[in-house]
Amino acid sequence: MPTLRVALVQLNATVGDLTGNCRQVAEGILHAKAWRADVVVLPELAITGYPPEDLLLKPTFVEDNLRAVRRLCPLTGGLVALVGFVDRDARGRLFNAAGVLADGRHRATYHKRCLPNYGVFDERRYFSPGARPLLVDLHGMRLGISICEDLWEPFPAQALHRAGASLMVNLSASPYHAGKSRERQQLFSQRAKANRMSVAYCNLVGGQDELVFDGGSLVLDAGGRLLARARQFHEDLLVVDLGLPVASRHPSHRAAKVSVAGQPTPRPPMKPRPSEWLDPLAEVYAALVLGTRDYVRKNGFETVVLGLSGGIDSSLTAAIAVDALGKEQVVGVGMPSRFSSPATQYDARRLARTLRIRFEEVSIEPCFQAYLQTLKGLFGARPVDVTEQNLQARIRGNLLMALSNKFGWLVLTTGNKSEMATGYSTLYGDMAGGFAVIKDVPKTLVYQLARFRNRGGTLLAPIPESVFERAPTAELAQNQTDQDSLPPYDVLDRIVKAYVEEDRGIQEMIRRNGLEADVVRAVVRMVDRSEYKRRQGPPGIKITPRAFGKDRRMPITNRYQES
Amino acid sequence: MPTLRVALVQLNATVGDLTGNCRQVAEGILHAKAWRADVVVLPELAITGYPPEDLLLKPTFVEDNLRAVRRLCPLTGGLVALVGFVDRDARGRLFNAAGVLADGRHRATYHKRCLPNYGVFDERRYFSPGARPLLVDLHGMRLGISICEDLWEPFPAQALHRAGASLMVNLSASPYHAGKSRERQQLFSQRAKANRMSVAYCNLVGGQDELVFDGGSLVLDAGGRLLARARQFHEDLLVVDLGLPVASRHPSHRAAKVSVAGQPTPRPPMKPRPSEWLDPLAEVYAALVLGTRDYVRKNGFETVVLGLSGGIDSSLTAAIAVDALGKEQVVGVGMPSRFSSPATQYDARRLARTLRIRFEEVSIEPCFQAYLQTLKGLFGARPVDVTEQNLQARIRGNLLMALSNKFGWLVLTTGNKSEMATGYSTLYGDMAGGFAVIKDVPKTLVYQLARFRNRGGTLLAPIPESVFERAPTAELAQNQTDQDSLPPYDVLDRIVKAYVEEDRGIQEMIRRNGLEADVVRAVVRMVDRSEYKRRQGPPGIKITPRAFGKDRRMPITNRYQES
Repeated sequence: MPTLRVALVQLNATVGDLTGNCRQVAEGILHAKAWRADVVVLPELAITGYPPEDLLLKPTFVEDNLRAVRRLCPLTGGLVALVGFVDRDARGRLFNAAGVLADGRHRATYHKRCLPNYGVFDERRYFSPGARPLLVDLHGMRLGISICEDLWEPFPAQALHRAGASLMVNLSASPYHAGKSRERQQLFSQRAKANRMSVAYCNLVGGQDELVFDGGSLVLDAGGRLLARARQFHEDLLVVDLGLPVASRHPSHRAAKVSVAGQPTPRPPMKPRPSEWLDPLAEVYAALVLGTRDYVRKNGFETVVLGLSGGIDSSLTAAIAVDALGKEQVVGVGMPSRFSSPATQYDARRLARTLRIRFEEVSIEPCFQAYLQTLKGLFGARPVDVTEQNLQARIRGNLLMALSNKFGWLVLTTGNKSEMATGYSTLYGDMAGGFAVIKDVPKTLVYQLARFRNRGGTLLAPIPESVFERAPTAELAQNQTDQDSLPPYDVLDRIVKAYVEEDRGIQEMIRRNGLEADVVRAVVRMVDRSEYKRRQGPPGIKITPRAFGKDRRMPITNRYQES
Repeated sequence: MPTLRVALVQLNATVGDLTGNCRQVAEGILHAKAWRADVVVLPELAITGYPPEDLLLKPTFVEDNLRAVRRLCPLTGGLVALVGFVDRDARGRLFNAAGVLADGRHRATYHKRCLPNYGVFDERRYFSPGARPLLVDLHGMRLGISICEDLWEPFPAQALHRAGASLMVNLSASPYHAGKSRERQQLFSQRAKANRMSVAYCNLVGGQDELVFDGGSLVLDAGGRLLARARQFHEDLLVVDLGLPVASRHPSHRAAKVSVAGQPTPRPPMKPRPSEWLDPLAEVYAALVLGTRDYVRKNGFETVVLGLSGGIDSSLTAAIAVDALGKEQVVGVGMPSRFSSPATQYDARRLARTLRIRFEEVSIEPCFQAYLQTLKGLFGARPVDVTEQNLQARIRGNLLMALSNKFGWLVLTTGNKSEMATGYSTLYGDMAGGFAVIKDVPKTLVYQLARFRNRGGTLLAPIPESVFERAPTAELAQNQTDQDSLPPYDVLDRIVKAYVEEDRGIQEMIRRNGLEADVVRAVVRMVDRSEYKRRQGPPGIKITPRAFGKDRRMPITNRYQES
């Protein structure tokens, strides 16, 4: 069997950065050449970054992307480069495309056939679907091209198999959620086996607004066995030798085919080496670190600031920020009020000390007093209620935003998914900031990730033990704990998962999950009623199968009430 | 020619309110019966409200909607009701559907063929497209069914024409933008003429989050001439007698057909009466009033509160709020600072007086002092900059939110589209609130609408003349005017329209619109850089062909820079 050397360039593109992305693609092609690869595969839409969203509606953007592809052609003497870009036909229709660049020319173009339009995806908003398979014959072997979703549906692989391809290449930009990398490998392995084709899957890596692309590019043989796997959450170059049968059949007239001339260069064989999986907590943690780093850096910030309350959420967020950006780039601010206990204030300071970050402390009391005085006449004899709690949270939000404005720091918010779901948070208060690191992390997982981080490499566990042991509290009123307003977090998180991520009905949750009817109803009501808050919250990293954000598009005006 | 009496029920549905919507549909059917109509047409998705968004992913929601349709059947003895609902097939696929209810039974179902997935629409996210036309034969006449977008594309009408239909009924939920009602009538008239079919178009009316449905249901004859038009922005019932030829041809096997038995009842003929068009400013104003009223009421609020600065934006917003909700339901708050002039404070009070709304005044100085003191140590020797301006805006935001929390009032924000575009606004400051009434209204149009309102029915022009004459200013620093930071508003608004609504490139704007290169570049940069702010702003009413919001989905992380 002849051998094909395939190089997968798992790069970190930035949406809109055509010049920078193109440079990375060019470097990838040159590295692949240095490794004497026959074929080099780039991720889906490597030129534009993924997802470019409504940039695609700008004709100048599409033209600039086409120009970028033309500039890459001269680099492709002696190998075949498969590059993701946006194609446009004579009628102005757009396609999510893979360019076949070879011998210095743009030889052919594949159009993605399966356009996802669910979850976070809007591809039907922009693209027309491709109509036929594309094959590349090279050194007697035949490979077929596919883009991302094409590999999740059965028919594109079947079409390539029928056309005599023995390798299916996939250019991908597949966003992360916990456990997805294993899901992918399992599915692709089935696809390989069912069609007796090897699979070479090149995924994007990096953060883009709410999404993290986790890399983990794969090469599987025709029996579905793993030959090589790239690192998760890091840029990587995977070079693999694949023994492939010589293509014998003629493809049907419905498939397009391009033949690339030339002889394989003699070269010592490569030893494939699958990198290890991260364990489940390490994987989520890595996603949060990468998502935070890329949001901050790609948006031109260096330093972040966050409020440290001595609670578990802000402690974990601070640790992630330090791991993402370095301790010099993180500023913690303690903003105690009359309701803050000495214990939480002490824990906030201790955390900052072990993380070795700058820590500032300012009391919110003078501002709080000023507001109460200002509002006294308007409030009249009305009793104290949640208004006064929100005021405190909003003073903190304002102070952090003032630091952001004065010093150019990005404010990180520290709310978790359980809070976002129930609206247990203050709009313009603790929700004020540029990026919500753990907004898709349920509270129970916050604790697990904090434990995981404490077990990590450093000598001192950064998050004080007392933070784990103390009952969670917003400290906005006397002797307040979260469980005054919310069910226990293990119960709450089960309901949120069933309702938000799995679209379970109330009756179903009560029946299947053995949950108390009153509690389920109360939580569902809280979730429904806080849509308006979430709509004004900052973006944050998706780590579950359904995050709040563009993954879940609920109306604010919504009178639906399940019985 | 026999005569068909068609009743169009232009109702105001609320998303998710299955019970309430169903009651309105039932009332519409009963009214149509009282008018002895042969056919009664309801808007698209009348049962669920439009757009139901991700509620459609909840199986219980779809089931409850199906149950609602079943409950309507008994009402349909003696006429044909065409009711918009969500259908589901055995494979679980969803369809945007029209139920043909007649003689107490659900006789047939049409599935929408053209699913819009651009602009504010996401129908491919939820629905599968229908495959074939549906005809209803009634009293010897033949009508064909279509849903919204089906009438905007040519082929569904052609298919119905070929199948022998002489009337095309359209169930619609078509959102408003300025001038769209005329656009629609022109297009439908062409469609009627080209296919020699009458058209009966029933549109939804009412506000739903960012959208306003403007009603204006139409009946056109086979020559494309207007026979009747329902009111814009109001619920209405349009009953029209249509002379239609007797259906002679057999429809092709590709169309489905249902025949409804019975004889037409004798009745005196109806006189069709087209209601007048609103003039362009009145139309936009009416959209803003309806959008505000429905957002406030459908979300369970009664009273709104807004900051009155003595500027044109808050003045117009207050007038709209009064027209939407009544003067008793609007509270104005003046929040002067050291930079507020006596003239603007006076104008704010005067506006409140002529509008006869409650007006409160609180100084933000004590809170501002408290913040400056609190931050003094952290700011050190840094010079005063935009930070101190934002602090003032955020104190105002906090005060309004405190009133909202204490009294259950909804905060209206007062920012216009020119500000939203350029980011000339403070996140969590003047952007803090539940609903942004004029966020899609460019500043130049704000002035025109204010003039329009002043010319209105009331004796006293509510907005003081000095508000029109004064140079716009945020009053956050000494002697500040908007034009210190922004180009003149007439220039700015032209650039915003070209860039945001028409996707023009920089070179094109300079060439075509005769705009200065530096100014264009500066504005484009401002628009691109303030995406993060807009993402956290409250929803507001779409009145242009492209509003900020789900109509324009730009990445925050975005390094694209046009040359």
